[in-house]
Amino acid sequence: MDEFMAAAIAEAEQGLKEGGIPIGSVLVRNGQIIGRGHNQRVQRGSPILHAEIDCLANAGRIGRYDDTVLYSTLMPCYLCAGAVVQFGIKKVIAGESQTFAGAREFMEAHGVEVIDLNLERCQQLMRDFIAQYPQLWFEDIGELTPERE
Amino acid sequence: MDEFMAAAIAEAEQGLKEGGIPIGSVLVRNGQIIGRGHNQRVQRGSPILHAEIDCLANAGRIGRYDDTVLYSTLMPCYLCAGAVVQFGIKKVIAGESQTFAGAREFMEAHGVEVIDLNLERCQQLMRDFIAQYPQLWFEDIGELTPERE
Repeated sequence: MDEFMAAAIAEAEQGLKEGGIPIGSVLVRNGQIIGRGHNQRVQRGSPILHAEIDCLANAGRIGRYDDTVLYSTLMPCYLCAGAVVQFGIKKVIAGESQTFAGAREFMEAHGVEVIDLNLERCQQLMRDFIAQYPQLWFEDIGELTPERE
Repeated sequence: MDEFMAAAIAEAEQGLKEGGIPIGSVLVRNGQIIGRGHNQRVQRGSPILHAEIDCLANAGRIGRYDDTVLYSTLMPCYLCAGAVVQFGIKKVIAGESQTFAGAREFMEAHGVEVIDLNLERCQQLMRDFIAQYPQLWFEDIGELTPERE
């Protein structure tokens, strides 16, 4: 497997160990990982630290993003896709989009190249997690309803 | 002035005092402020803590957003607009959009009501800041180029 996606999956697995939502992300420049992170909703009580946002936060103030590639175990949602478009990241590689279709078309409409690796391991992490903690997942994607609260 | 926009401006002014980019935001539910924040790029070295994201982080895990209104002294960029769309916030009130047009059309296309108050105080805060620290501003909106670095 792509070493960078393997690193993103390791982040997702770390998040799962911590009791969190198993989504991981790494930011790559010139063949090197310059940031990594995973969803921190549970661990840090943060609604905004999706895996990709945590990764971008951990990468710090790198200035320009046009030579970076963002890896995520799951297709980015609008929050994370918004960061991609605003920061000028040109390429996104997602582990899967079966669990969640995300905002692929929005990114592509803004000239971002999006690749979906459609990996069983990424799907399995989410499938198992959502079966166990559906309300956490709906909270994370902003789809909590009175019936789900 | 609208008390909530006044609170967002107070956040922007607090950010300026801290040496940061003067953009502030509050989240309102049922006529009460449930989160407030300001841009933290300089203060916390964070590229992702735009005012609106800092505000949403500080509001914590509130679950549902469909009954909230997000105020920002500046029209939200794609990152912050992405959060609005993903979380299901239905109304955004911006202090101005002269400095930066932001992602108004994107939010409106997703059913968000967007109001631009076009306030001179908000414009002045940004105008003065950008004249003094243009590179910080371009970094914040992802438009740093080799000439600007």
